[in-house]
Amino acid sequence: MDCDRITPEILALFIQAVGADAIFTNEESLEKYSHDETEDLRFYPEVVAKPSTPEQVAALLKLCNEYLIPVTPRGAGTGLSGGALPVNKGLVIAMERFNQILEIDEANLQATVQPGVITEVFMNAVAEKGLLYPVDPASKGSCFIGGNVAHGSGGPRVVKYGTIREYVLNLQVALPAGELIWTGANTLKYASGYNLTQLMIGSEGTLGIVTAIVVKLIPKPTHDVSMLASFPDNESACAAVSAIFRAGIIPSALEFMERTGVAWVMEHEGVVFDLKDDAQAFLLIEVDGNNPDMIFADCEKINTVLESFNCLDVLLADSAAQKEELWRMRRRMGVSVKSNSVYKEEDTVVKRAELPNLIRGIKEIGNRYGFESVCYGHAGDGNLHVNIIKGSMSDYDWKNKLNDGIREIFELTVKLGGTLSGEHGIGYVQKAFMPIKYSPVHFALWKGIKQVFDPHNILNPDKIF
Amino acid sequence: MDCDRITPEILALFIQAVGADAIFTNEESLEKYSHDETEDLRFYPEVVAKPSTPEQVAALLKLCNEYLIPVTPRGAGTGLSGGALPVNKGLVIAMERFNQILEIDEANLQATVQPGVITEVFMNAVAEKGLLYPVDPASKGSCFIGGNVAHGSGGPRVVKYGTIREYVLNLQVALPAGELIWTGANTLKYASGYNLTQLMIGSEGTLGIVTAIVVKLIPKPTHDVSMLASFPDNESACAAVSAIFRAGIIPSALEFMERTGVAWVMEHEGVVFDLKDDAQAFLLIEVDGNNPDMIFADCEKINTVLESFNCLDVLLADSAAQKEELWRMRRRMGVSVKSNSVYKEEDTVVKRAELPNLIRGIKEIGNRYGFESVCYGHAGDGNLHVNIIKGSMSDYDWKNKLNDGIREIFELTVKLGGTLSGEHGIGYVQKAFMPIKYSPVHFALWKGIKQVFDPHNILNPDKIF
Repeated sequence: MDCDRITPEILALFIQAVGADAIFTNEESLEKYSHDETEDLRFYPEVVAKPSTPEQVAALLKLCNEYLIPVTPRGAGTGLSGGALPVNKGLVIAMERFNQILEIDEANLQATVQPGVITEVFMNAVAEKGLLYPVDPASKGSCFIGGNVAHGSGGPRVVKYGTIREYVLNLQVALPAGELIWTGANTLKYASGYNLTQLMIGSEGTLGIVTAIVVKLIPKPTHDVSMLASFPDNESACAAVSAIFRAGIIPSALEFMERTGVAWVMEHEGVVFDLKDDAQAFLLIEVDGNNPDMIFADCEKINTVLESFNCLDVLLADSAAQKEELWRMRRRMGVSVKSNSVYKEEDTVVKRAELPNLIRGIKEIGNRYGFESVCYGHAGDGNLHVNIIKGSMSDYDWKNKLNDGIREIFELTVKLGGTLSGEHGIGYVQKAFMPIKYSPVHFALWKGIKQVFDPHNILNPDKIF
Repeated sequence: MDCDRITPEILALFIQAVGADAIFTNEESLEKYSHDETEDLRFYPEVVAKPSTPEQVAALLKLCNEYLIPVTPRGAGTGLSGGALPVNKGLVIAMERFNQILEIDEANLQATVQPGVITEVFMNAVAEKGLLYPVDPASKGSCFIGGNVAHGSGGPRVVKYGTIREYVLNLQVALPAGELIWTGANTLKYASGYNLTQLMIGSEGTLGIVTAIVVKLIPKPTHDVSMLASFPDNESACAAVSAIFRAGIIPSALEFMERTGVAWVMEHEGVVFDLKDDAQAFLLIEVDGNNPDMIFADCEKINTVLESFNCLDVLLADSAAQKEELWRMRRRMGVSVKSNSVYKEEDTVVKRAELPNLIRGIKEIGNRYGFESVCYGHAGDGNLHVNIIKGSMSDYDWKNKLNDGIREIFELTVKLGGTLSGEHGIGYVQKAFMPIKYSPVHFALWKGIKQVFDPHNILNPDKIF
């Protein structure tokens, strides 16, 4: 699809459908929607639409379906796998005007929210009513909840509370033929028909465009404590992870960070922390609940576990300021790595007891290919984000050899029983690696499902597979 | 499909694929597999196969796909929606020889289990290692975990721990063309490709046959307490349900029972309980955790909530024997209703705050049509099982008018924002009611997905839609 598809006649139909104030073709807009947070990739759309109602989204899809215009749905553009890149030009449908929390239903502990609401804005709104929506990716301050649905997002609290899959009850979806449906019911469970809600989650905008989201809420725990534990090496830290669960504790977060990552956040974000010379790896652990005594008892138990894994030091944070500082360290790590060097981020997930093997293998692969890596992530879920740093690698090797190294990382991940992407999605940049894990039978099923929803392949084409 | 399809030649191929000791055509076998627990429906298969390996299941499917033989997968036959009824004759594939727990992986808190393992057997096996698998339908003592996957099963503990959807990590599935695939990875989450694991869950054996199941386990809480609260009317009991959550408590079970149901269990199952004259409705509430003081504090809070909803009396059970007796009352209710009268069970689910409206409406519909009903279920999830009792209704009305009454119940459920079936599935008996909730667009998507997996429509045909 090299040529422009959107003729002046089609553009006029777009304008007729959503109004001139929702259609953008100026250079500045096309530039803004040409990239997301994925490396330095750029693909320019022909037109950007900013619809405001589900009906407008459906109308745009219907037109694109008729005229075979590629459509790229876009949330906040914080994705790390290129899912929002308009790689085939065409129309970007930007969902930023869907920015309303439509209802917080306290009697049923549910909320209905538009997909363009910033995740943290929503979390704060429900927290004001004593409720918790626990799906908080590191980018919660800027990402949209609709993008979280598209990627099946996780975040630090998955380890106790589950991914977004466990909170989404029902979705309003615009389909390519211009229909609007609700995938299920606003109930905590149902067993009627194939679960279209779950199928939409993680489908990366390739099956339909989500126009409203009903989520489950839970009572917000009244107390939490965070701890930062230092270890002399990555393996000790990773090995402690599964031992904590085995001791009968489910922390509300259990994050791993390598020393380099911590050092770079201190440098770039002004986080102050007494970084000991022999500390090479860290676990950031949060325990929550309604009873401070129980929480401290759990922290004590965790301490005992950590000691048997060579833990050097534990910093306990129970004031809001201390906790915020520790979590800022974790949340800003991706941004700091990015500020520091050209990099590529790969997302891996294994069974949590395989984490020491995974990280050891990644370093070994890096040694052979000549790249450094900064690893961090949701260790409690076995989910490790691998930031490959260009550093002193030559431009030639970065361009021509690195791909083989990344392939080896995913081959190792799969060999350890894991898979590509714990939560970032496959999008555009990981799809070449999918055959490492999945067979032609999987691809045939996926492509068959895609064909059912989107027979003309207009929705986010060339993503996932 | 009225005529027999399985010729002597095809039968010989079945025998060649799985061995003569796994193929049954005798009258006794055909009788046994002609019914499940759904009303008094009977449909006789032509042949029953009891394969022992995934490869045998795949080989049988491949043959049936080639010769267009309808296949009905069957677990323990405890289903209440007729999902295991061979309504088009053909082959029943009974999974009872898949009865091994293959691995309990304590380091990763995962287990791999065959689909023919009885749910309670599996729960007990993991409990011995201090672990919890919390998906416990009332039939846990006889149902298979594979059937639970097929129906997206719930049970009393969904309210705190979620349905089986939140525990299944990966599935081995035999597909109609004879392929065997793993749907995902043995990881706590992943975001790569459409989630085939979630699509298989609740698909009622219409997309593939599950041959192995990997589930997540969690640390088992060390303590729990059960309470039975009595109320003067259904509405008070149901209204108390959402108030409990609003007080910040997530009980580990929150079950509703009508007086008639309780009285019948006492009569049929010898459960002893001091049933007060003015008690018309009951909530069975369980709270679990690792700290007895916290649990009793939660019970106190719950008590306070109950008092403001006209609660007459609260019985607290903390000994194992007392708890077992209360839970036997709940679990044996379906069986007792069945012993007492010809009945039909319908499964409804609404937002939990709509429960009082739902139950009031059901009684009103019953009054108009002349039927009694015994309602009970997982009130914490808004999931109400409606047992319609034939009682003094004439055979003519039972056969000719009842269906309209049931339709009104589902219309009410949908009007209240709910849907058919919280956990029993649609199977054979509910499918006529599906258009009350779902549009032709839903049916087109479902049928399209079915076509992708099972192009010759051999797998459990005429179920769900």
